[in-house]
Amino acid sequence: MKNCIVAQSGGPTAVINASLAGVIRGVIASQEIDKIYGAVHGIEGVVNDDLIDLSSIFYKDSRINRLVHTPASYLGTCRHRLPLEDDNAEVYEKIYKTFDKHNIGYFFYIGGNDSMDTVDKLNKYAQKIGSDIKFIGVPKTIDNDLAVTDHTPGFGSAAKYIATSMREIVLDSQVYDIPTLTIVEIMGRNAGWLTAASALARSERHKICAPHYIYLPEVAMDVDKFVDDMVKAVKKHRNVVVAVSEGVKDKDGRYICEGGTPGETDAFGHTQLTGTAQALAHEVRKKMDIKIRAIEFSLLQRSSAHIASLTDVNEAIEIGEFAVSAAIDGATGVMIIVKRLSTNPYIVELCTFNVAEIANVERKVPLEWITKDGNDVTNDVVEYIRPLLEGESYPRFKHGVPHYITRHASNT
Amino acid sequence: MKNCIVAQSGGPTAVINASLAGVIRGVIASQEIDKIYGAVHGIEGVVNDDLIDLSSIFYKDSRINRLVHTPASYLGTCRHRLPLEDDNAEVYEKIYKTFDKHNIGYFFYIGGNDSMDTVDKLNKYAQKIGSDIKFIGVPKTIDNDLAVTDHTPGFGSAAKYIATSMREIVLDSQVYDIPTLTIVEIMGRNAGWLTAASALARSERHKICAPHYIYLPEVAMDVDKFVDDMVKAVKKHRNVVVAVSEGVKDKDGRYICEGGTPGETDAFGHTQLTGTAQALAHEVRKKMDIKIRAIEFSLLQRSSAHIASLTDVNEAIEIGEFAVSAAIDGATGVMIIVKRLSTNPYIVELCTFNVAEIANVERKVPLEWITKDGNDVTNDVVEYIRPLLEGESYPRFKHGVPHYITRHASNT
Repeated sequence: MKNCIVAQSGGPTAVINASLAGVIRGVIASQEIDKIYGAVHGIEGVVNDDLIDLSSIFYKDSRINRLVHTPASYLGTCRHRLPLEDDNAEVYEKIYKTFDKHNIGYFFYIGGNDSMDTVDKLNKYAQKIGSDIKFIGVPKTIDNDLAVTDHTPGFGSAAKYIATSMREIVLDSQVYDIPTLTIVEIMGRNAGWLTAASALARSERHKICAPHYIYLPEVAMDVDKFVDDMVKAVKKHRNVVVAVSEGVKDKDGRYICEGGTPGETDAFGHTQLTGTAQALAHEVRKKMDIKIRAIEFSLLQRSSAHIASLTDVNEAIEIGEFAVSAAIDGATGVMIIVKRLSTNPYIVELCTFNVAEIANVERKVPLEWITKDGNDVTNDVVEYIRPLLEGESYPRFKHGVPHYITRHASNT
Repeated sequence: MKNCIVAQSGGPTAVINASLAGVIRGVIASQEIDKIYGAVHGIEGVVNDDLIDLSSIFYKDSRINRLVHTPASYLGTCRHRLPLEDDNAEVYEKIYKTFDKHNIGYFFYIGGNDSMDTVDKLNKYAQKIGSDIKFIGVPKTIDNDLAVTDHTPGFGSAAKYIATSMREIVLDSQVYDIPTLTIVEIMGRNAGWLTAASALARSERHKICAPHYIYLPEVAMDVDKFVDDMVKAVKKHRNVVVAVSEGVKDKDGRYICEGGTPGETDAFGHTQLTGTAQALAHEVRKKMDIKIRAIEFSLLQRSSAHIASLTDVNEAIEIGEFAVSAAIDGATGVMIIVKRLSTNPYIVELCTFNVAEIANVERKVPLEWITKDGNDVTNDVVEYIRPLLEGESYPRFKHGVPHYITRHASNT
């Protein structure tokens, strides 16, 4: 009987470990796969033969349950992009050395765009060398920017955090009898799904009409027009709250924040965006002498398992389990996708899809879901997002703080 | 039968409306007080006769329950400090005009230091003019800096948010195999209670030893020493997370953030502190070329009712109810205080205390609860804070977002 490896890649989410738990459960329930190993720091752990025997840690349901509710990547993660074989054949040889050594028949990679590229490359390499190892992509990203699938695990919980925190900020912003402007910056370099989720903070019934404006990266931002929007909004609503994507760019494609704070490049060559809200606040201050606050949700929006969406958590587990069944059924070079059959009632089904058509494609918010003025989203996006937030999945607390599990101390 | 007024003042908290709900419940249960009015925007609402009839809104338990779980000041708030009578007698006359018009016998003021000063002044004025209106202070502040009382409602929930979010940030910070530094900025101009609460994110059993350092405003910060701490910590722990109070100052009493970002003054003359973490990150970057992130909890830490402490919520309600009983029993010029009888098991009792001795006094973290190096807290402060976080008080959710109540739409 063959063993399998599972790994996590890219930025963490509140439910990336629920996906891992799903894969573990799937393997435990199967008759076809023996042991499950976790690769530490994504594909790097496979290259370096840095594996953990997950079977010996998660033999108890109670441990798997704690894993389900723990945010951030239990196994560690990476942004390592697998090179083309022509550029570095040695990496592929090392990977297969690990596979051979541990009698691996299946590899599950939990991640986003870059990770699907790795799954695709490994699958093509396997075909070339005649290996029958199955490579399955398990979708994960708060950005919700994977192609083909209706949505991605991680997005629902981040969206729930954003809608909830935004509503709390809106209530807080209205308590003083003075005009105020609050600019909230939300993650998303190129896709505005998370920023769009701030619209769910609104409630017509409770007269919560903020955030008053929402700016996605899909539409070029004219900073003068933005300042103008703010001045008018404060005149009309007095206490104004707006949501802006960290990735908003001007018409020439330059990040707005680059003007405000020196752009930093992260360790992976991506521009580290921060300070978009601050840069915009700075511009508005030139025109309006009122209290202006810039808030960044920062890491909180991707790691807040304490307010995860039950729908998201359950789907993450199911997709993990489905990935195992699909692999056993012979699928390879595929990612598990979610097909939405109906929004109301919310019904989805899981399928497999050729990973080559998903890798390296970025799915953005359709322009018809953004208002003509480019400063709000339509109701369609709200209806699309709403079911993904449904239900609360709370971690167990101990002494008032969530009782999370870590790789460094798995035995407690 | 006399009526009463209740008002909210100062910065909002996650449980300031639980205090309000307690006062409303106390009045509804009493035989001695007829109607309860809410003054809009604190004492300003009394001066301007801007009152809401709360009896007609909160006649149903289900509404009171929603109020309990709604963050930010339902009635609106202010930072209006009542002038001395000698400076502005007209304000006092206006206040009494409102009192007379509505047949007021009791005034409950939910707030912090400044608000207790108002209660004290109103009480002294009443004594002078021979009024028998009772003035009661109901404590509220996330800063936990009120004198005499063991702690203040609002602190426990903010502390729970901070410990929880800090633990989530710590897990998130450890996922990549590269050295990182995360500096988290926490509210507290002069008192470091909230920043100290970040220590509760640690868990020896789970090998979570971050935040590695904690810097309170009670101790002067030497920026060179701070940078040195960071360099050593990254060498030792690789992924370092530290907590700093927004109010840390150098040995000459200058805010650290003043060097980093231009200091802004808020509408109330207080220096608006922001950018302390960023200013410090900037200093560390000069010495270390690693990924450094600055995170501010900002408004989130005071408005996150979605993760309120059950102990805090229950105490806020009880203190509100107790305030009504005390007033009916004839108390005036007092604030309700919490006396801790035991930490383990946690037992407290409520009493009244002369508000004149509480107003304008700031209670800081005792220096013996801060380590000698000034970069951590002792276990005593952890033991003191722990019971205040105990238990979870979740709001009801609707369509995945908390179902809060607002003054603008109370009838839904």
